[in-house]
Amino acid sequence: MAAPLDPGAACGKQGHPQPLPNPMTLSKPVRLYETFRAPNPRRVAIFLAEKALDIPREEVDIMAGQHREEPYVAFAGAPHVPALELDDGTVLTETIAICRYLEALWPEPNLMGRDPREAAEIEMWQRRMEFGLFNVIAQHVRHAVPAMAALEDQCAEWGAATRGRIDRALEELDRRLRGRSFIAINRYSVADITAQVAIDFLRVPRIEVPEELEALQTWIRRVKSRPSAMAGLERPKRGQT
Amino acid sequence: MAAPLDPGAACGKQGHPQPLPNPMTLSKPVRLYETFRAPNPRRVAIFLAEKALDIPREEVDIMAGQHREEPYVAFAGAPHVPALELDDGTVLTETIAICRYLEALWPEPNLMGRDPREAAEIEMWQRRMEFGLFNVIAQHVRHAVPAMAALEDQCAEWGAATRGRIDRALEELDRRLRGRSFIAINRYSVADITAQVAIDFLRVPRIEVPEELEALQTWIRRVKSRPSAMAGLERPKRGQT
Repeated sequence: MAAPLDPGAACGKQGHPQPLPNPMTLSKPVRLYETFRAPNPRRVAIFLAEKALDIPREEVDIMAGQHREEPYVAFAGAPHVPALELDDGTVLTETIAICRYLEALWPEPNLMGRDPREAAEIEMWQRRMEFGLFNVIAQHVRHAVPAMAALEDQCAEWGAATRGRIDRALEELDRRLRGRSFIAINRYSVADITAQVAIDFLRVPRIEVPEELEALQTWIRRVKSRPSAMAGLERPKRGQT
Repeated sequence: MAAPLDPGAACGKQGHPQPLPNPMTLSKPVRLYETFRAPNPRRVAIFLAEKALDIPREEVDIMAGQHREEPYVAFAGAPHVPALELDDGTVLTETIAICRYLEALWPEPNLMGRDPREAAEIEMWQRRMEFGLFNVIAQHVRHAVPAMAALEDQCAEWGAATRGRIDRALEELDRRLRGRSFIAINRYSVADITAQVAIDFLRVPRIEVPEELEALQTWIRRVKSRPSAMAGLERPKRGQT
């Protein structure tokens, strides 16, 4: 293999900045399909609120299985919420893919990084929060909370096994937050959104964040004081804009 | 909330393309910490091979617990491989964060999208592959394969419960690939890398992809024929460049 560690050294195209597309020419969002209170839709709702964007919403009743039935599955391409419909008929699912597309259209206030270095730090922490905290809590809720049998083929032993992992994840986040205001970089980012929604979701299995995790408690108060903090917690009217 | 659905309509900064940073000014990778055959390091190894990049490597013995011990944890910031060390001393972990940073430095051949629309489609499919296939297989391996007790506090019932989920994930991927050459868009991308590494990892629990999944079998032959396909499967010499 060649070793072109100087960008641009190996070939004319490598490392050469490509022109940024003009956001005016990108397909615009026309509707967001979401489920009030569900954690992934809440991440997008907070992301939109931070950017002061108001996209028409449509509620999908996942507890009734609407996301797994037609016409929704064919429309969204997967039994997932949230889904973002664009004005050319494309539908995007997957929370972070939706957020990144919205960030390309509306870069400010910036939540995913202003340059590749910031973007890498934020994505690293977003993924640590997603795999190490958000998914651990989601697995616990889906497998340990009886009402979630509507959404999940439950494994009770896994529900029990994930309980201790939540404590360890909260302790680890507390260590990260000692002496810091935000999780990834020195301002609020999508990594904070993922962690904040995950911790809010602890209300379902009635788990409290231990008082002695002081840095985490301070951060929770900090993010809860943002105007975006309640986004996705109110049930929208059908087709509300 | 305001409804500035025209990018650039609400405020001077919104929707305005920011100048792309010159990759020449970004910190360069100096060393990649990896574990041969482990799936996440393999994703980065294939990504580098596709770009014909050769970064000095260092092996981390995760089965001996090296990733959970000092000096590694303090160095990498988390007990994770792979980790990418930059020339300013920063260390990045998390596979996709590392890939995105490398893509910013060396955009071609492009694996994560040339514009926000492609980037969204690729990220959507990368995440569907990661959550719906890669993580399902990883959970099964970690909880059902006895030797993996070195890495995981195993839950045997969860190991068993994930087995059927693998079959369903393979069937779903087969449906996606009918009439398509690649998973996300009309060329090879990081979404293919995630799925390819996940399916290769089925060798550990000795699960075979069913012959009747013809579109998936054809795609497997297609990606295995790429020169990058064996990357990350050979044990590097210590400090090999």
